[in-house]
Amino acid sequence: MKKNIASIALTLAACAAALPAHAQFAKPEDAVKYRQAVFTVTARHFGALGGMANGKVPFDAAAAAANADVLAAVHKLPWGAFGENTSGAKSNAKASVWKEAAKFKQGADEMDATVAKLVVAAKSGNLDNLKAAFGPAAKTCKSCHDQFKE
Amino acid sequence: MKKNIASIALTLAACAAALPAHAQFAKPEDAVKYRQAVFTVTARHFGALGGMANGKVPFDAAAAAANADVLAAVHKLPWGAFGENTSGAKSNAKASVWKEAAKFKQGADEMDATVAKLVVAAKSGNLDNLKAAFGPAAKTCKSCHDQFKE
Repeated sequence: MKKNIASIALTLAACAAALPAHAQFAKPEDAVKYRQAVFTVTARHFGALGGMANGKVPFDAAAAAANADVLAAVHKLPWGAFGENTSGAKSNAKASVWKEAAKFKQGADEMDATVAKLVVAAKSGNLDNLKAAFGPAAKTCKSCHDQFKE
Repeated sequence: MKKNIASIALTLAACAAALPAHAQFAKPEDAVKYRQAVFTVTARHFGALGGMANGKVPFDAAAAAANADVLAAVHKLPWGAFGENTSGAKSNAKASVWKEAAKFKQGADEMDATVAKLVVAAKSGNLDNLKAAFGPAAKTCKSCHDQFKE
């Protein structure tokens, strides 16, 4: 058990080291508010791309690129706001975020990788590229929500 | 009075025309949640630059640039979420947002212009540039909050 805790601590330390300096929070509730805000913005622009990928709204290359620009800027921001000091704060995050920190980091990395590909596809001006990249990105979102979100 | 209403309607129509297609909302409360989320993200990264500009945290050129990248991507996003159909939704926006729509748009434009300059300054790697650009941007934020936010 001690080893597990040490391992989690190391994983969290590794996450923290990878964070930009601007992503550190003094108060846990500030971090929660921030990460929820980032997810709201992400969901909005991700959803707009999904609407086009799924044929619910007509493909608009300029709008796709604009949504992609926002996604590119925000999709990595939440991870720095899941510090261990936020594990007790009121939020929709399950305790597994911190108890299975390595798995959570893996999910975040997979999401970042698929969203990075989605951003490129959405800026290509080609609907087929967008369609091909949207599914894998949506899958990584859902996978993390299923495991780590109430 | 009729003329005033017509003038406001024209102003709002002009705003709407300037909005990207991805910034349209079906439900007023979705728009409110989104614009509040954008302001939360904006405030966080704006505040990080302010900390450096005001000498509260050491200047870090890479962090300043990273914060500026986020600001650049998000600072124009809220305006599309102040549609007239959101004027009755629960939020911190005063009725003056819609009653004095032209003035609100002017404030938004001024904020966008000063933040665009702040982004350039924050990415210059020069603390003096950042200091010079931060004050005017902060002033436009405050001015709008004083007039249009509860």
